[in-house]
Amino acid sequence: MQPLSVTLGDRSYPIHIGTGLLDDAKIYAQYVASRSIAIITNDVVAPLYLERVQGALEQAGARVVPVLIEDGERAKAWATLDRVIDALLAARCGRDSIIVALGGGVVGDLAGFAAAVYQRGISFIQVPTTLLAQVDSSVGGKTAINHARGKNMVGAFHQPLAVLADVATLDSLPDRELRAGIAEVIKHGFILDLQFVGWLEVNIGKLLARDRAALSHAVRRSCELKAQVVAADERESGLRAILNFGHTFGHAIEAGVGYGTWLHGEAVATGMVMAAELSVRTGTLRRADADRVTALIARAGLPVRGPDLPIERYLELMQVDKKASDGRARYIVLEGLGRAALRGGLDPRLVRESIAAAAQ
Amino acid sequence: MQPLSVTLGDRSYPIHIGTGLLDDAKIYAQYVASRSIAIITNDVVAPLYLERVQGALEQAGARVVPVLIEDGERAKAWATLDRVIDALLAARCGRDSIIVALGGGVVGDLAGFAAAVYQRGISFIQVPTTLLAQVDSSVGGKTAINHARGKNMVGAFHQPLAVLADVATLDSLPDRELRAGIAEVIKHGFILDLQFVGWLEVNIGKLLARDRAALSHAVRRSCELKAQVVAADERESGLRAILNFGHTFGHAIEAGVGYGTWLHGEAVATGMVMAAELSVRTGTLRRADADRVTALIARAGLPVRGPDLPIERYLELMQVDKKASDGRARYIVLEGLGRAALRGGLDPRLVRESIAAAAQ
Repeated sequence: MQPLSVTLGDRSYPIHIGTGLLDDAKIYAQYVASRSIAIITNDVVAPLYLERVQGALEQAGARVVPVLIEDGERAKAWATLDRVIDALLAARCGRDSIIVALGGGVVGDLAGFAAAVYQRGISFIQVPTTLLAQVDSSVGGKTAINHARGKNMVGAFHQPLAVLADVATLDSLPDRELRAGIAEVIKHGFILDLQFVGWLEVNIGKLLARDRAALSHAVRRSCELKAQVVAADERESGLRAILNFGHTFGHAIEAGVGYGTWLHGEAVATGMVMAAELSVRTGTLRRADADRVTALIARAGLPVRGPDLPIERYLELMQVDKKASDGRARYIVLEGLGRAALRGGLDPRLVRESIAAAAQ
Repeated sequence: MQPLSVTLGDRSYPIHIGTGLLDDAKIYAQYVASRSIAIITNDVVAPLYLERVQGALEQAGARVVPVLIEDGERAKAWATLDRVIDALLAARCGRDSIIVALGGGVVGDLAGFAAAVYQRGISFIQVPTTLLAQVDSSVGGKTAINHARGKNMVGAFHQPLAVLADVATLDSLPDRELRAGIAEVIKHGFILDLQFVGWLEVNIGKLLARDRAALSHAVRRSCELKAQVVAADERESGLRAILNFGHTFGHAIEAGVGYGTWLHGEAVATGMVMAAELSVRTGTLRRADADRVTALIARAGLPVRGPDLPIERYLELMQVDKKASDGRARYIVLEGLGRAALRGGLDPRLVRESIAAAAQ
């Protein structure tokens, strides 16, 4: 199938979606010939796919340096980044070297940020192996590591040369991570495409059963929707913020329970329930539509109730959210299903009520 | 006087050059009104200028957060960056906050990189208080921190909103740092402007005596020359590399003796002597012109002889230089005085001889 295109002027790039892309030397060949390539991956993904990707890259004419990082969110830290930089320098990677990010969102964020800052920026290719990474984090050029005071607080916008989303890799994904990825798929429907919400309500069972045709459609439609938003607002000065629907609440949940306890997609799922409650309270979403939000999330096997955290703790954690404008939090609300907007200056009482409505 | 302009499309910015700019609230007002401003400076510069800059910013309507870092090259490290990020988060600085870098090249590089990566990038203003920073590091958007394996190995291209070069601040500069700054001024002549080399040969005494008119002219001409190169090649894919004349050797000297032992400008000065020797050996520079290079550097009170390091150590350190293309070092050579070019594939013997010619 034709690759999707993310249209960003001289930073435009293709997203290849399909099966068996992972070790397709022909796709790699157009980027990597006679260069040094550092494959950054973790100790869970490496046994599954490293050999195949490395083989294809070498066949395409590259000198390959594998760099293994630890699994999990804690890899999004300076200590890991420093080890990656060290490995690249030790392997004499220069400015024309390319990083291949092989793995889920954590690998993509960390490897992408390494590419953004290594010798002031080198190219990278995303090879996402989780649904979350295929439909969300690999598209749009956001890269980052975490800080003790908040998630993704240190990072860069750095667009990849290309994305290779091989849906066959989703076979190896644990159920819980599959569902976490579906959370972001659903999100794209809620904020941008009412018709896609309808498709998801019909096909959610097929996605959970890993029907490959259904997964391919979901990945493709999600990437199309996200690519449109990114093309219109690469650096999140306006429109792009709507992609953070559910994320202000979700980040507070992730931070509040300790990063890695809830999966990102799980926290976003509950965050979307809270954001839908807020939308009802600000008068832009009908109760019946908020109920559709909650019902679809529940049918996807995702949490619709928050963890056992005091509401004050949510508010405290949300104050450092990046959407805050000089200290005042802002929120993405739905204006009907399939439409979203960024809102500031909301009555804090409504925010509290919305959290309480979906709290434990 | 009219500010210079660095022409980079939507990243274009002005360089204001003059005296008394440091606390000119009118200049700040166009950028900072009603925003949070973090002034990043060090414990040497703060007692001299922090109060004046902070006062002007507050008068211009900003909320000011001073962040002090340690003096010296060792501040260009992750540990310092992390403390800066922490201070910004603690002060609830958002994406519309602005960083003001008040100090020399180290402060500018570190603060600029903090601005490049804080919440994926915020704006910053350079207020350079050393000659080196005014003529070189504050112009062109290069930001970085160091890595144990090499200088400036982690960084970003991030253009400032504006540069305020107040030559009155040079009154407080130690002689040694003044001379180190003159090294980069001279470099701009060697690589781009034969006429400016002639002016420097006549006026070097005035610069060393801190004649303010001479300094203003030298700062302005240096910034003009550098801005032309940066405008033509923002991300150093070609032409811009010539600004690194003397730097491949210079970085090896800095790293070889331990960062901070030689000043950057001192290392570059000796590096330029070595690079001129290399240019003679590759046949693009006459011996008489190489002698003019060495003579002007010596008259500026800068070192023309390298430190006591084995030649093998130079070569080892130069291999990780960022101009290396997949492991092979490249060098900037002069093609006559006032003209430079990037050259690869040189006979390593010529490189050794050139180091030896200027070695201790």
